[in-house]
Amino acid sequence: MPRHNLKDAIPALLPEELIQTLAGNGGVRIERIVSRGHGSPAGFWYDQPEHEFVLLVAGAAELELAAPSERLQLGPGDYLTIAAHRRHRVNWTHPEQDTLWLAVFFADDSGPASGRSGA
Amino acid sequence: MPRHNLKDAIPALLPEELIQTLAGNGGVRIERIVSRGHGSPAGFWYDQPEHEFVLLVAGAAELELAAPSERLQLGPGDYLTIAAHRRHRVNWTHPEQDTLWLAVFFADDSGPASGRSGA
Repeated sequence: MPRHNLKDAIPALLPEELIQTLAGNGGVRIERIVSRGHGSPAGFWYDQPEHEFVLLVAGAAELELAAPSERLQLGPGDYLTIAAHRRHRVNWTHPEQDTLWLAVFFADDSGPASGRSGA
Repeated sequence: MPRHNLKDAIPALLPEELIQTLAGNGGVRIERIVSRGHGSPAGFWYDQPEHEFVLLVAGAAELELAAPSERLQLGPGDYLTIAAHRRHRVNWTHPEQDTLWLAVFFADDSGPASGRSGA
């Protein structure tokens, strides 16, 4: 039985956010995301067709959400569900420690989870 | 935007495991499970119609799986996916600290996630 740890196999150098699918099916996608000072590019907003449940497991981040505009500081154990098509971006992640996210993407009902992923 | 923490609202006394659905739809169910020394009753095995992705966020536990028989000691950050109908039970959780699980139940394809839940 493969058992893994969210801290496994994190590269020493992380020029880009690391995004890996851990499990799922046609209707749900469970991802590990590792950020190390990464944030969304200036002016970039995620606009996803699925709902996203996201748990910050380690590290620290600031999320920004649109309509209505909000900023959320997230620490270990914090989670939220971002509704489909609620625009959001990662303003900041801790520059000196790895921020580990567990994200679960799922459709309104049982449709496919195929959209662009992100924390 | 509601933001919560996995450590929120844990009762001082926990005579039973605490199981709460955090998000989901007809095809996926995301649960928080809090154990405090709880384990499966003697002779009890979970036999679930869905796959279960489970992440131990805090605490410590021993899982037992059948066919083939395996015991897994789990600590913070450990995760695994238990295939539908793979029998399993919780042999042990730490008696003096809360063990926090995030569990995601999903069907083989996009069918309903309606079975009995558990870590």
